[in-house]
Amino acid sequence: MTPPHYLDDLTVGQKFGSGRRTLGLDAIRSFAAEFDPQPFHLDEAAAQETLFRGLAASGWHTAAVTMRLLVDSEFRPAGGVVGAGLEELRWPRPARPGDELRLEIEVLDVRPSKSRPEQGIVKVRVTTLNQDDEALQVYVANVVVQRRV
Amino acid sequence: MTPPHYLDDLTVGQKFGSGRRTLGLDAIRSFAAEFDPQPFHLDEAAAQETLFRGLAASGWHTAAVTMRLLVDSEFRPAGGVVGAGLEELRWPRPARPGDELRLEIEVLDVRPSKSRPEQGIVKVRVTTLNQDDEALQVYVANVVVQRRV
Repeated sequence: MTPPHYLDDLTVGQKFGSGRRTLGLDAIRSFAAEFDPQPFHLDEAAAQETLFRGLAASGWHTAAVTMRLLVDSEFRPAGGVVGAGLEELRWPRPARPGDELRLEIEVLDVRPSKSRPEQGIVKVRVTTLNQDDEALQVYVANVVVQRRV
Repeated sequence: MTPPHYLDDLTVGQKFGSGRRTLGLDAIRSFAAEFDPQPFHLDEAAAQETLFRGLAASGWHTAAVTMRLLVDSEFRPAGGVVGAGLEELRWPRPARPGDELRLEIEVLDVRPSKSRPEQGIVKVRVTTLNQDDEALQVYVANVVVQRRV
């Protein structure tokens, strides 16, 4: 385990990578059955008739797997990965069964808090890529990070 | 089942409601174990020591349950609920074990596509509330909606 990153350790332009996780057909279907039960996430034949042109993972499944890759990634903010929110989130293309996902994380901004001197906000862009380096999801998040005291 | 909403049926200011779903402790822990294994989502005692001051659902769990409530809601876009992306997402407060979630959905904009006359984009604000009508999550999403042909 690398030591955690305090706000004071992070600088604009820093990049971090992650491990990889494969999105299997069964996982796609079981996530969709619970959280996003629409035909294009559940059934290959039905999905062919939709604008997805084949079975696709729910975007929220991609987002959840992204969180797991982020928690296990090289980006280790002190106090944990605590999101205050996202400024945008896009799904340029859907994840397909068997896709192997990984992340690219880039620090866009580092701001100490004026009201809470023990912490600050780090803005990061988190891009989720498949095995062909195609972006499946891109978001910009504001993460609460502790300061070195 | 109400009939689906085509783009032509939707107008700015329209509001839709949803059913309710309770976020139990076991569900919070099992989602976190798979997708967001951090102490404040897994263990009550450890969570007390964090900025959450007690066990809290992963924001991505709230987002996933929101999607399920949305798919089952009164907002029924023709072609399904297909998100092109979000313009923002905030978690003003975390969901706690036992919270009962419901949605308020408001149409903010309706835009026919110039390049694809059979569809358009509807911008909606989706607010996830708990049983005390406190907002847990707010996002603004762009949803692809079919036109009446």
